[in-house]
Amino acid sequence: MSDRFGQGPLMGAATPSEAEITAAVAAQQEWMVDVLERLVAAPTVLGDEEPGQVVMERTWRDAGVTPYDVWLDADALRADPGSSPFSWDVSAKRNVVATWKAGATGGRSLILNGHVDVVPPAAPQLWSSPPFEPRRDGDWLYGRGAGDMKAGLVAIAGAVRGLRSLGVAPCADVHLQSVVEEECTGNGALQCLLSGPAADACVIAEPHPDHIMTAQVGVLWAHVDIVGRPAHAAVASASGFNAIDAAATVSLALRELEAEMNAVRPPPFDGFAHPINLNPGVIHGGDWASTVAAQCTVSYRLAMYPGQTPAQTAARVEAAVAAAAATNPFLAENPPRVRYDGFRCEGFALGPDEPVAVALAGAYHRVVGTQPPFLATTATTDARHFVRRGIPAVCLGPLAEEIHGIDERVSIASMERAAQVLAVFVRDWCGLVSD
Amino acid sequence: MSDRFGQGPLMGAATPSEAEITAAVAAQQEWMVDVLERLVAAPTVLGDEEPGQVVMERTWRDAGVTPYDVWLDADALRADPGSSPFSWDVSAKRNVVATWKAGATGGRSLILNGHVDVVPPAAPQLWSSPPFEPRRDGDWLYGRGAGDMKAGLVAIAGAVRGLRSLGVAPCADVHLQSVVEEECTGNGALQCLLSGPAADACVIAEPHPDHIMTAQVGVLWAHVDIVGRPAHAAVASASGFNAIDAAATVSLALRELEAEMNAVRPPPFDGFAHPINLNPGVIHGGDWASTVAAQCTVSYRLAMYPGQTPAQTAARVEAAVAAAAATNPFLAENPPRVRYDGFRCEGFALGPDEPVAVALAGAYHRVVGTQPPFLATTATTDARHFVRRGIPAVCLGPLAEEIHGIDERVSIASMERAAQVLAVFVRDWCGLVSD
Repeated sequence: MSDRFGQGPLMGAATPSEAEITAAVAAQQEWMVDVLERLVAAPTVLGDEEPGQVVMERTWRDAGVTPYDVWLDADALRADPGSSPFSWDVSAKRNVVATWKAGATGGRSLILNGHVDVVPPAAPQLWSSPPFEPRRDGDWLYGRGAGDMKAGLVAIAGAVRGLRSLGVAPCADVHLQSVVEEECTGNGALQCLLSGPAADACVIAEPHPDHIMTAQVGVLWAHVDIVGRPAHAAVASASGFNAIDAAATVSLALRELEAEMNAVRPPPFDGFAHPINLNPGVIHGGDWASTVAAQCTVSYRLAMYPGQTPAQTAARVEAAVAAAAATNPFLAENPPRVRYDGFRCEGFALGPDEPVAVALAGAYHRVVGTQPPFLATTATTDARHFVRRGIPAVCLGPLAEEIHGIDERVSIASMERAAQVLAVFVRDWCGLVSD
Repeated sequence: MSDRFGQGPLMGAATPSEAEITAAVAAQQEWMVDVLERLVAAPTVLGDEEPGQVVMERTWRDAGVTPYDVWLDADALRADPGSSPFSWDVSAKRNVVATWKAGATGGRSLILNGHVDVVPPAAPQLWSSPPFEPRRDGDWLYGRGAGDMKAGLVAIAGAVRGLRSLGVAPCADVHLQSVVEEECTGNGALQCLLSGPAADACVIAEPHPDHIMTAQVGVLWAHVDIVGRPAHAAVASASGFNAIDAAATVSLALRELEAEMNAVRPPPFDGFAHPINLNPGVIHGGDWASTVAAQCTVSYRLAMYPGQTPAQTAARVEAAVAAAAATNPFLAENPPRVRYDGFRCEGFALGPDEPVAVALAGAYHRVVGTQPPFLATTATTDARHFVRRGIPAVCLGPLAEEIHGIDERVSIASMERAAQVLAVFVRDWCGLVSD
């Protein structure tokens, strides 16, 4: 594999060696940690991504490439069948991208992508330190989004900055993308594709530290709005119908669908005991302890295998909810409504010979010394948008723990290592020439 | 009964007849409807009671009695064992009371009480018209709180204004009270007793239209805070513990306690099929559809029989929650916390010979023509505070439908009738003299 991909036909005598590249990237460590801390200190939850993009704008510039904005266009997104539905205003949201221009021709172009948005901190009071105040403890840097995936964005920037310090340029354009809304719709990455250039491949620096992610599930967010019959709690059993109780009924029905979907696990998901996860992630219901709850909304996340469409999965969710409702006279008359807002996306699986995966594995092998396996993930990533448009996309990035959890953390050493792997991969995939 | 209570020893030749009283009260109808509409237009939910008290201040004055304020005193309330716990600021809250001074001695004093606060509208979008815009449709007036119990407050005012139009005064003080927080703590009424005068009896004009309420359950609000183990939804089954799912487990355990409490129903609750109602009234959990829910809080309302103390009931709730938690390894290590905020009050039952109930029944009989039964309610009212302090208290008031529900409404005719019954009762209980 190293013969085929390790020394591409485009590299001449000026091409830096692995040792030169890894040293040049290692020299960026202090800068990388500083950027990461500033990124983590920006609480870039949905609707508040901009402070993080301000950091990324400067970061691309500090890496030597000129940033530009790709603003989200609601109409264009909604017109694209690969978008996810959204009920909020996106007009003030931008992706911050930058193109490291080719210094020669003949190479393979590349997109290096990461997302700046993070999920909320789940339960701030359970954290050992405030989730949006970066905290170092040895090799770990703690903070919401530190691993998912601000350290990945920094690894991309560190790779480019390190390579540029060697006075080289790629032999095809390398597009750097800091996108929004990966955690809810993926519409940020999609907008980059609608507005900007394509490429021969894409690598997303999601926290896949010791393997290359080449397959992922699809994900559907389904919000179930349940209406009850409010009444004074004193006559709850006689006159009321409690929407909070009904939510538990709906959850049970969807758990049955989940079990059904896990009963037969097609490859590459047959190695997982439970690849399809249903998650009731948010619930809000009722407005007074002594009033029978008039309404309850549960926001579910449900995965699906590649080949299963979001529309098919939505139909199964709706059928499960309807079947549960049919068993209850009140719900039969007042059926819960299933609403879609956020993720509605398909999965994919690349083959084992996919050139970008093979080349990236080769770079990893040269830097780390071991051959990384190609693995599937039971999550979604923005990779689907690239794959859907014919741009093979995989993930490799720093080591993170407790993503979406409490005390999320990322390994600083792994961030540097990921940057080194990405830098060697850029050399291998794009080719390098003296700048 | 009418011999004993219908014509008290204090009434002389100037005492108005039932016909004179009912006509004098009927003459107040236009004024009463106007007051009711202004009261309903004030959305006096918890924390926003003041606009309603402004209306009541003017209403007592328009009824001919001078209002004064009884401010809630957090320290004094918390020091009283009959108070309910509260986590919010009450320093800007007042009850608006007024004393119709005795014009002679020798009568029995009286408190006429109502609450100005209302529960939230449950689901505004389900209402036929906005819940805080009073709407007339024939005899019905619609609006949140119209029946529970703004029309009751108006009936009290109408009774007094009608009697005063006849140029009479009572033979003992009649205290008019518009209190706050009946729907959550009862601490408004309690403050009136801590700060103000006692009386020989109390009538609360809650919507008990064709009977007299002489017994009620106790009520406990228990908020259960459940902590989960957040994780990415992609690994929910392997790494997460979902607090929303755990809330359903807790609810099931409390439903078992509810069933146990309904299995044996002591009098006067033996006529109810299901007197003890558990209500999960409010639920909030999780913060992201793709994150395993880290926390979930459910606010439960649970009733108890007279003789069962709130402390005993709280212990049963805690035991049920603990038993449910013990069956699950994660919950056993991270037990849900039961928190008390709001109702924590005992029930009571008056005997069938209670003079205030008998006298009120006599007045009702004389006005309406039928004998009202004495009934228990499966709700709580502020009556408990008076009873606890040796002031017999009962409820009688207008006809309301859908209290705490959608399209709550009150009968205007029943409001006038309740005012007439209360006015005749004041004559019978207190005695009247020419002013």
